[in-house]
Amino acid sequence: MDIVLLGSGNVATHFGKALFDAGHRVVQVYSRTKAQAIVLADALNARAIDDLEAIDLAADLYLIAVTDGAIGQVAAQLPAALNGIVAHTAGSVDMAVLIPHAQKYGVIYPVQTFSIAKPVDFSSVPLALEASDEATYAQLTQLVDPLSTQIFSCDSRQRLALHVAAVFASNFTNHLYAIGADILRKHALDFDLIRPLILETAQKVMAFSPREVQTGPAIRHDVGTMQKHLELLKEGHQGLVALYQQLSEQIYSN
Amino acid sequence: MDIVLLGSGNVATHFGKALFDAGHRVVQVYSRTKAQAIVLADALNARAIDDLEAIDLAADLYLIAVTDGAIGQVAAQLPAALNGIVAHTAGSVDMAVLIPHAQKYGVIYPVQTFSIAKPVDFSSVPLALEASDEATYAQLTQLVDPLSTQIFSCDSRQRLALHVAAVFASNFTNHLYAIGADILRKHALDFDLIRPLILETAQKVMAFSPREVQTGPAIRHDVGTMQKHLELLKEGHQGLVALYQQLSEQIYSN
Repeated sequence: MDIVLLGSGNVATHFGKALFDAGHRVVQVYSRTKAQAIVLADALNARAIDDLEAIDLAADLYLIAVTDGAIGQVAAQLPAALNGIVAHTAGSVDMAVLIPHAQKYGVIYPVQTFSIAKPVDFSSVPLALEASDEATYAQLTQLVDPLSTQIFSCDSRQRLALHVAAVFASNFTNHLYAIGADILRKHALDFDLIRPLILETAQKVMAFSPREVQTGPAIRHDVGTMQKHLELLKEGHQGLVALYQQLSEQIYSN
Repeated sequence: MDIVLLGSGNVATHFGKALFDAGHRVVQVYSRTKAQAIVLADALNARAIDDLEAIDLAADLYLIAVTDGAIGQVAAQLPAALNGIVAHTAGSVDMAVLIPHAQKYGVIYPVQTFSIAKPVDFSSVPLALEASDEATYAQLTQLVDPLSTQIFSCDSRQRLALHVAAVFASNFTNHLYAIGADILRKHALDFDLIRPLILETAQKVMAFSPREVQTGPAIRHDVGTMQKHLELLKEGHQGLVALYQQLSEQIYSN
């Protein structure tokens, strides 16, 4: 299939490469910043454009992978005559945002965290699909089938919930790693000391449900240890006291 | 070396097996509950005891791997005549708790989360060592050298900080996984959908520092998306609203 990729950030880059590797043809990469469009377009053997007037009218898919707030704006600038599907890739943007701007539209939301610095095995990335109608859904399924082994149907409300769950399990989790690193640094200890623990904690829930494998002072109702931890935090990490208490109370009372 | 293992829970079990596999001789396993002592003792080719009067007086190491609150009590019941080292394995218990009960004492704290259900590669577990004197420290180092590739010196204060960091990066992280699972369940979605994301988030900080790879709406200052997330939480997950706000504000202001 012929695809026009709108966007040149993390998601656009990883998605574009996965589409390219799967044998699809990325005909154009659009970015407001031509230099950025060129970098990605070169990698995908595509043409870079920075003007939506120059968009290819015959593509099968127009994939909008820009920041959430810009999706509607980009869609509004697309020519009215498009026959292809217009889809976005965002977790928290309702599919309805595309209704005024396309006949056939949908969403392909990849449930993964992407960084430019680290390649991702796209075949293991779950893809949440939603479409304006059954024929479009079937076309999108066919399109992403070679990309991932885990494709599932998900309406906009479920997708928003999925995104919130992902924020807790990934973005907030990474912040807890950063807190751990801060505490260690303050006490002249290296982050390497908890790296095996972090990996084991994640690997454990690959096979078990998180509640089954909860450990630590809060789940043991070990008030003495929690008290010692709070005293240490009060001395050098005042900003973490409330967070420690809140998380411990939630675990304790579960 | 000859070792008496005091305790039969998660840490005692994993530690005992690692010591056994490293070629040390575990002569006795003590537990107040004889049946539990027997299970572990059988696995380690050791003798099970439930009475500290029966303790072997000639062992090189008495390793106390019981709940934090019971360490002092167990140490107090040890015979005064022991020549071996008395050590505990806890993150948040000061080494000083052993002073009244032993001539040579120390701490071996494994920085890892242990579950009975899942084996752990002990060789990658960092071991924090502390000892009453240099000779004892050298003996402990020799003893654990075949167990782990990462052995380091750590005083009681640092060890407490390390334990607090571990609580954030592991226990609290696992709780965030559980929150993710709850949100998904409520919206008829499977936890499998965020498992690859959880693993990738952990794997990312094996090579990068957490702050370098922070993603999500809060770090992007994407107020619109955070607002949508809060609205969803207010409708069905009221108990998570404050936590979402607190974590987002910390990330946002970093």
